[in-house]
Amino acid sequence: MLFHVRMDVAIPYDLDPVRREELVATERKRAVELQRSGVWRHLWRVVGRYSNISIFDVDTNDGLHAILESLPLYPYMMIEVTPLAQHPSDVAIQIGSR
Amino acid sequence: MLFHVRMDVAIPYDLDPVRREELVATERKRAVELQRSGVWRHLWRVVGRYSNISIFDVDTNDGLHAILESLPLYPYMMIEVTPLAQHPSDVAIQIGSR
Amino acid sequence: MLFHVRMDVAIPYDLDPVRREELVATERKRAVELQRSGVWRHLWRVVGRYSNISIFDVDTNDGLHAILESLPLYPYMMIEVTPLAQHPSDVAIQIGSR
Amino acid sequence: MLFHVRMDVAIPYDLDPVRREELVATERKRAVELQRSGVWRHLWRVVGRYSNISIFDVDTNDGLHAILESLPLYPYMMIEVTPLAQHPSDVAIQIGSR
Amino acid sequence: MLFHVRMDVAIPYDLDPVRREELVATERKRAVELQRSGVWRHLWRVVGRYSNISIFDVDTNDGLHAILESLPLYPYMMIEVTPLAQHPSDVAIQIGSR
Amino acid sequence: MLFHVRMDVAIPYDLDPVRREELVATERKRAVELQRSGVWRHLWRVVGRYSNISIFDVDTNDGLHAILESLPLYPYMMIEVTPLAQHPSDVAIQIGSR
Amino acid sequence: MLFHVRMDVAIPYDLDPVRREELVATERKRAVELQRSGVWRHLWRVVGRYSNISIFDVDTNDGLHAILESLPLYPYMMIEVTPLAQHPSDVAIQIGSR
Amino acid sequence: MLFHVRMDVAIPYDLDPVRREELVATERKRAVELQRSGVWRHLWRVVGRYSNISIFDVDTNDGLHAILESLPLYPYMMIEVTPLAQHPSDVAIQIGSR
Amino acid sequence: MLFHVRMDVAIPYDLDPVRREELVATERKRAVELQRSGVWRHLWRVVGRYSNISIFDVDTNDGLHAILESLPLYPYMMIEVTPLAQHPSDVAIQIGSR
Amino acid sequence: MLFHVRMDVAIPYDLDPVRREELVATERKRAVELQRSGVWRHLWRVVGRYSNISIFDVDTNDGLHAILESLPLYPYMMIEVTPLAQHPSDVAIQIGSR
Repeated sequence: MLFHVRMDVAIPYDLDPVRREELVATERKRAVELQRSGVWRHLWRVVGRYSNISIFDVDTNDGLHAILESLPLYPYMMIEVTPLAQHPSDVAIQIGSR
Repeated sequence: MLFHVRMDVAIPYDLDPVRREELVATERKRAVELQRSGVWRHLWRVVGRYSNISIFDVDTNDGLHAILESLPLYPYMMIEVTPLAQHPSDVAIQIGSR
Repeated sequence: MLFHVRMDVAIPYDLDPVRREELVATERKRAVELQRSGVWRHLWRVVGRYSNISIFDVDTNDGLHAILESLPLYPYMMIEVTPLAQHPSDVAIQIGSR
Repeated sequence: MLFHVRMDVAIPYDLDPVRREELVATERKRAVELQRSGVWRHLWRVVGRYSNISIFDVDTNDGLHAILESLPLYPYMMIEVTPLAQHPSDVAIQIGSR
Repeated sequence: MLFHVRMDVAIPYDLDPVRREELVATERKRAVELQRSGVWRHLWRVVGRYSNISIFDVDTNDGLHAILESLPLYPYMMIEVTPLAQHPSDVAIQIGSR
Repeated sequence: MLFHVRMDVAIPYDLDPVRREELVATERKRAVELQRSGVWRHLWRVVGRYSNISIFDVDTNDGLHAILESLPLYPYMMIEVTPLAQHPSDVAIQIGSR
Repeated sequence: MLFHVRMDVAIPYDLDPVRREELVATERKRAVELQRSGVWRHLWRVVGRYSNISIFDVDTNDGLHAILESLPLYPYMMIEVTPLAQHPSDVAIQIGSR
Repeated sequence: MLFHVRMDVAIPYDLDPVRREELVATERKRAVELQRSGVWRHLWRVVGRYSNISIFDVDTNDGLHAILESLPLYPYMMIEVTPLAQHPSDVAIQIGSR
Repeated sequence: MLFHVRMDVAIPYDLDPVRREELVATERKRAVELQRSGVWRHLWRVVGRYSNISIFDVDTNDGLHAILESLPLYPYMMIEVTPLAQHPSDVAIQIGSR
Repeated sequence: MLFHVRMDVAIPYDLDPVRREELVATERKRAVELQRSGVWRHLWRVVGRYSNISIFDVDTNDGLHAILESLPLYPYMMIEVTPLAQHPSDVAIQIGSR
C-alpha cells in the first residue's frame, strides 16, 4: 500500500554540530536500510530545499507511523502524508497485468 | 531528469457528457502511451480526490510543458510542478551503482 | 485501519431539484449501508456547514478510494483524507487489552 | 455533546529532558483518566505528526475548555476545536434507536 | 452556552430578484424572532462586507446546527462557528456575581 | 462605536515566571477596569486557545489603539481588529427603539 | 477618523454590457462626489489589478458602512477595511501642530 | 510615483533594551526627515498592531529600496510594497487639474 | 525601472471560441510589439500552467498599469506585480560598469 | 534550461557578526562567479525585502540543486524554484530566430 510522504527538515541552528552530523549520518543509514527492505520505495530531493518527497510501501497506517517516528531526524521534520491508490490509467492496469 | 507533478482535475459540471467521456478516454490513452514511452514514470491516484500525483522523466522544462499542454484534460487541470534531484541517501548512490 | 475523512459538499445551485433529492437520498442509503457493514465507523455533521467528519475503517488505501468514489455525491464533494494510527495514550493500549 | 479536537504538540527543543518526560508521562496518565471517565471518547495519532485527533464528549463549552486547559502539555499545544452535531445519515437515527 | 458565529453571505447574481427579496425578508423575520427568544444574543454587520458576526446562546451543538440550518439564507452562507467559554478576567467572575 | 477584537496571546516560554505572573495579574486588573468603564463590552475565551474574542465600545480608532497598546500583555499578543456596524436585522432597530 | 479600504472589483463576465457601463459611470460619479465632500480622502489604483486602495475619513463605523454599501459596484466588490490611528512618528505630531 | 508600503515590526524580545530604544528613536527621527522631504507622504498606525501603512513618493524602485533599507528598524520589519497608479475616478483627473 | 509581473490566465470556458482565438492572437501581437519596443524585457511560460512570468522595463507605475490594462486578455488575467531593484551582487555593479 | 528562483534570506539575529559578514561576502563572490559563468542569468532585489528573484540557466535539476546547495547563505534561505519554458509569444520564436 503506497503513501506519498513529504518531509521538510529544519534542524535548529544551535544544535551541537557533532550531534547534528551524527543524526544526519544515522538518518542516512536508516534510509538506506528501509530502501533495501523495500519499504521506502522512492526518495527524491526537492530542488532548492532541505526536503524530500518519498513513496513508502507499507501494509498499515500504524506501520507507516512507526517507521516515520523511528527516523533519527523525526523531531526536526514537518511530515505530510498523502495516501495513494492505483490510478485507472496506470499502464499496468490497462494491460491487465497487475 | 525527474519532475514531481500534481494534477487536480475539475471538469465543469455542464460540459456535454459525450464530450466529457471522449476527453477522459483520450486522456487515458495518452497517459498509457506516455507511460509506455518511459516519460510518465509513475502515476498514482490521490485517495478521495479527482487528482493524481505523477513522476515525469524528461530532458528539458520545455519538453515537460509540451507534454502537459498536450494532455486532453489540460484545460481543466490545475497542475503543480516540482523539480526533483537525486537524494544523497538514495540507495543507488550509497552503493555506488548509479 | 482507520482514516479521518472530511467531506465538504457543494451541490451546484442550478442542479435539477429532483436530481438533487435523488442524489441526497441515495447518498443517505449508501451511508447507512456502509455504517452497518462497519466500514464507515463514525459520521458527524460539522455545526453550521454542509460538511461531515467521518472515520472509515478499511484494509487498504485502494479500498478507501473505491468507497469514496462510489458515493453518489462524490462529484460534488471536496474530500480530505488523513491516515490515523493508534495513539500511545489510547486507554485500550495502556491496559493491554487491544 | 461532541467536539472534534485536533492537538498539534510542539515542545521547545531546549526544554529540560527530565521535565519533558515528566510532562509526557502525566499527560498520558491524564488522557487515560479522561478516556475512562467517558469524556475523551476517541484518541488517534495523525500519521507522521506529533499530533492527535480526538473526540470529546462534554456538556458545555466551559467544561471542554477547563479540561483542555488542565492538560499538562497545554502550554505547548496548538488546539483547534470543531463542534459536532448528529448527522442525518447516522445509522442510529435512521433506525430510530437514538 | 455561547458560540461565536460568522456568516458570509453570497447569493448568486442570477437568483430571481423576487425570490431574493423574499429570502432576505424571511431571514430578517427569523433573525428578529431568534433575537427575541434570547437565542441570537448579538448580531453585528462587518463593515464593508455582506457578513455578520453573531453570538448565539444555545444549550447544545445540535441545537445550534438546527437553528443555523433553518435560516432561509443558509444555502448561500459560509458559516464559521467558534465555541466560547467564560474568560477568567470577565468582570462578572471577578466580582463573584455570576 | 463597536469593534470586534481577537487577541491571541503568546508569552515566550523563557520569560521570567515572576514577571509573567505579574503581567497576567495587571492585565486582569486592567481588563476589569475597562469592562467597568463600559469600554470593554464583552470578553470571551476561545475554547482550547490562549485567546480571547472581545467587543470594544470606543469613540475613535485612535482611542481603541491607545487602549490596546496600553494592555500589559500587548507586546505578546497578535491582535486583529474588525470594525462593526449596526445590522439591519438587529431587533432593536426593527422595533424602532434604538 | 481614518480607515484604509481595499476594494477588489469582479463584475461577472456575463453582465449586460450596457448595465455594466452604467454601473461604472455612476460609481465614478459617486466617487467624485465623495472625494469632493472630503469623505473619500485618497483613491489609488493597484497596478495590474481592477482594485483600488483608498483612505476614508468618516466619524463612525456605521457611517463608513453606509457609504460603502451605497456604492453602485458594491455587490461586485470584495472590500477589506483596516482602521487607522495616528502614528507617533507622524511629522504633524512631532512638531506639535496637530 | 507612489507606492503603498506596509511595515510589520517584530523586534526580538531579547534585544538589549537600550539598543531597542535607540533604534526606535533614530527610526522616528529618520521618519520625520523623510516626511519633511516629501518622500514619505503618509504614515498611519494599524490599530492594534506594531505596524504602519505608508505612502511613499519616489522616482524609482531603486530609490524606494534604498530608503527602506536605510531605516534603522529595517532588519526587524517585514515590508510589503504595492505599486500604485492614478485612479481614473480620482477627482483631480475628473476635473482636469492634475 | 524593472518590474516582475506574473500573469495567470483564466478565460471562461463558455467564451465564444472565435472571440477566444481572436483575443489570443491580438494578445500575441501586442506582446511581440511590446517586446520589440523594449518594454516587455522577458517573457517566460510557467511549466504546466496557463501563466507567464515577465520582466517589464517602464519609467513609471502609471506607465506599467496603462500597458497591462491595454492587454487584450487583461479582463481574464490575475496579475501580480513586484517592483525590482538592482541587487548589490549583480555582476554589472561589482565590475563598476553599470 | 531556465528556472525562476526566489530566495528569501533570514540570517538569525544572534549569528556572530564576523561570521555573518564573511558569509555575505563569500555569497557575493560566488554570485558574481556564477553570473560570469552564465549560469546565474539574472539577479534582482525584491524592493523592501532581503530577498532576490533570479533566473538560472542550467542543464539539469541536479545541476541546479548542486549550485543552490553550495551557496554560503543556503542554510539561511527559503528557496522556491519554478521551472520555465519558452513562451509562444516570445519575440525570438515569432521571428523564427531562436
